[in-house]
Amino acid sequence: MAEKITPRADDYAQWYQDVVREARLAETSPVRGSMILPPNGYELWENMQRGLDGLFKATGHRNAYFPLFIPKSFLEKEAAHVEGFAKECAVVTHYRLKTDESGALIVDPEAKLEEPLIVRPTSETIIWDTYSRWIQSWRDLPILLNQWANVVRWEMRTRLFLRTAEFLWQEGHTAHATEQEAVEETLRMLDVYATFAEEWMAMPVLKGVKTASERFPGAVDTYCIEALMQDGKALQAGTSHFLGQNFAKAFDCTFQNQAGEREHVWATSWGVSTRLIGGLIMTHGDDAGLIVPPRLAPVQVVIVPISGKDGAAALEAAEAVRRELADAGVRVHLDARDQYRPGFKFAEAEVQGVPVRLALGPRDVEAGTVEMVRRDTGEKTSVAREGLAATVRAALDDVQRSLFERALAHRTARTHHVESYDAMKEALDAGGFVVAPWDGTPETEARVKEETKATIRCLPFAGQIDGTEEPGTDPVSGAPAARRAVYARAY
Amino acid sequence: MAEKITPRADDYAQWYQDVVREARLAETSPVRGSMILPPNGYELWENMQRGLDGLFKATGHRNAYFPLFIPKSFLEKEAAHVEGFAKECAVVTHYRLKTDESGALIVDPEAKLEEPLIVRPTSETIIWDTYSRWIQSWRDLPILLNQWANVVRWEMRTRLFLRTAEFLWQEGHTAHATEQEAVEETLRMLDVYATFAEEWMAMPVLKGVKTASERFPGAVDTYCIEALMQDGKALQAGTSHFLGQNFAKAFDCTFQNQAGEREHVWATSWGVSTRLIGGLIMTHGDDAGLIVPPRLAPVQVVIVPISGKDGAAALEAAEAVRRELADAGVRVHLDARDQYRPGFKFAEAEVQGVPVRLALGPRDVEAGTVEMVRRDTGEKTSVAREGLAATVRAALDDVQRSLFERALAHRTARTHHVESYDAMKEALDAGGFVVAPWDGTPETEARVKEETKATIRCLPFAGQIDGTEEPGTDPVSGAPAARRAVYARAY
Repeated sequence: MAEKITPRADDYAQWYQDVVREARLAETSPVRGSMILPPNGYELWENMQRGLDGLFKATGHRNAYFPLFIPKSFLEKEAAHVEGFAKECAVVTHYRLKTDESGALIVDPEAKLEEPLIVRPTSETIIWDTYSRWIQSWRDLPILLNQWANVVRWEMRTRLFLRTAEFLWQEGHTAHATEQEAVEETLRMLDVYATFAEEWMAMPVLKGVKTASERFPGAVDTYCIEALMQDGKALQAGTSHFLGQNFAKAFDCTFQNQAGEREHVWATSWGVSTRLIGGLIMTHGDDAGLIVPPRLAPVQVVIVPISGKDGAAALEAAEAVRRELADAGVRVHLDARDQYRPGFKFAEAEVQGVPVRLALGPRDVEAGTVEMVRRDTGEKTSVAREGLAATVRAALDDVQRSLFERALAHRTARTHHVESYDAMKEALDAGGFVVAPWDGTPETEARVKEETKATIRCLPFAGQIDGTEEPGTDPVSGAPAARRAVYARAY
Repeated sequence: MAEKITPRADDYAQWYQDVVREARLAETSPVRGSMILPPNGYELWENMQRGLDGLFKATGHRNAYFPLFIPKSFLEKEAAHVEGFAKECAVVTHYRLKTDESGALIVDPEAKLEEPLIVRPTSETIIWDTYSRWIQSWRDLPILLNQWANVVRWEMRTRLFLRTAEFLWQEGHTAHATEQEAVEETLRMLDVYATFAEEWMAMPVLKGVKTASERFPGAVDTYCIEALMQDGKALQAGTSHFLGQNFAKAFDCTFQNQAGEREHVWATSWGVSTRLIGGLIMTHGDDAGLIVPPRLAPVQVVIVPISGKDGAAALEAAEAVRRELADAGVRVHLDARDQYRPGFKFAEAEVQGVPVRLALGPRDVEAGTVEMVRRDTGEKTSVAREGLAATVRAALDDVQRSLFERALAHRTARTHHVESYDAMKEALDAGGFVVAPWDGTPETEARVKEETKATIRCLPFAGQIDGTEEPGTDPVSGAPAARRAVYARAY
């Protein structure tokens, strides 16, 4: 399996495709741009869902569900929103097929919808139409909802997980009585995303705000978390939008405040998607395949029994280990398949990124030991059978921590502070986050994008990167800059 | 709230709509036939998902995800399947909108898809196309997958939960090396559904097989669980299909068996949907609103503090009760809202079907008691504060059991054995399951449907209803009948 994976140094894009295929995370489908998620990929998403869902509920949110289809007229109501999404919509125009005279199956021309329906690219419009009926008074606020759903954006160039026509995601949509409350919510959910990225995915992220040109269509402000992949390209991992009163105005959603006056409602929306799986792969994977942080791993520990003179004893001992670990709350799998040899099983666990592998042969049974291999370092140790659950849990914790530290060290090493345009170009070519003074104009931003293919990933919050709050001189325009932006080429 | 609910005896259909609305389970949307699920409805579905998912995993299944869109040509490949679904498909024909000269948003005629895409009504075709690539050898079998997804069937007459254009469901799709194994899987999953219906939903079901006219399009045999609603109409609550080699042949999915020969793969599929929520409402609800079986209730116990001379003490005591119950694993909610009076909170808990309600006032605090009210019987008791968690858990268990027994007694009382066509018509008019000898012909089945609007719900398995295995004379045709069928009018 590992031999089927192109080394990262040779061709990073090919490496990514190879890992996705060999770890059986996703595959392309006959429907252009839509992916198939086999269990290995889908279970990663389920674990991400579980982690995020817990964080959403802990911050007072409930789940709900809104229709897949959105009337075309809804999309038109918010000017920036339609501008952003109309160009990439799947459109349902008919509701029936029929067999024609030649026996072929055709779209029945008589079953044309009066108003075409859009397959949701995001649900602001259908949700704010609903909120306009739900909200009458300040007593109805806040509304704090989240939806787990599939959405469709007709992307022309697709890449598994990173950019697909259909993807799975969650979208939070909240309604508030005051601007301040909505802004606080926007930032709270950005923090939730950062916590999830760093503590579950072991993927360090920068928190910041997008420039106007990178804003969500219809937002007043878009905040984001940005991660740095191993090849030095950035990945936008999650966004949280302060929508102001834009959607409330478009859908005439008002409430009576405590003083008895009618006001438009304030809004936020925020989302992360299966794209995170792409980020996880490119943050931790190595030339042998995937590496999954233990907290998200569908299988945290695989046990491989080694038949020797007494295969039955090894299998029995392996089963006892499995039970003990399962009782200790470890997600453990005993790979007892007859038709495969231990070497094959080791390779499979490695390419699939199982954090810890245990092997048990007759000699281990006699000696009261177990062989333990960490996926992140490849380190092999013989550990005592006695107290194994505690040993394994400590190892899992250490893998989780080490993965984060390794990724953080990588990001630190590839964050470049520059003062000249030449240095900026050189750093962008080398790959990484490039911190440079920005004069705040869209013209400079557009020129850099045109000339280097890099974009401003975010204006990082105070304390995210040392020195970004310092003023300086924009190296591109020569104009004075109040603060520094983080540039990078991005997925 | 309860006063907004039409009594069942007056108008059962209106009662159903009223309960759905007042309990805030679902509402119609501006998209014809698509529903909105507010949190109360969606959380019921989440709990159903959790219960079913555990049962699926315990029987060796894993979750996966396949595309929302299906190429039109896929639907054509299985003759019965296309016949069954072509008439109610949402069809995507374009992938872009644009603004025309007058500034209106229109479907861009230049963005027409070469091949139209169908929004999945069910996923057999896209999955069997995938399986044909995944399966080469007997070593690749069985494949035991489930998908949680939204599907679309363009129904003309819709009713919330029971029949909607878009609905949420799960669909299992399994692939096997032998016919026997596939049949066993079909029946195993039918048992899983029956277990879920009876032990989680407290809804008794009949297990049986459908007649040919009621089979899933593309199936060799369709098995079902059928429940009886309070108005005497039947509800098909879940189906499990033995698909034979039909889809494997349509998608050329073969495997090399252990003897080295190529054979077509054997298949099953099985599904339940948000329709189950409709079944839950109509099995247990009463004139005061919804009643949710404790095992599925998002909130099992609501605590209402009663302010008296010392409101703070009651609130503090209520919070202590909440913690104690939460620690005991009870899903408990303390309704501490200031702006509503206890009477309002009681009514809300009642209409939403919370199984157990606790109230605590200053006098209870002094006396060391708590007022407990069961939703199913309305029985009010003063119980000791000491040992409350055990008391509450016992009450929840008893509500769960009583709901099932009540529903079973209702079904038993409304199951009629008839020997003449007149008695059959009379029993169908009265409502309920009608057990009658059937001559096994589609002609008789069609005549009964035409003349009484009743269908054969299933040929029940042995032991499901006494006497159904006995031969007799078909009361409609007068022909000899080898066994008896269960007829009913149905949702």
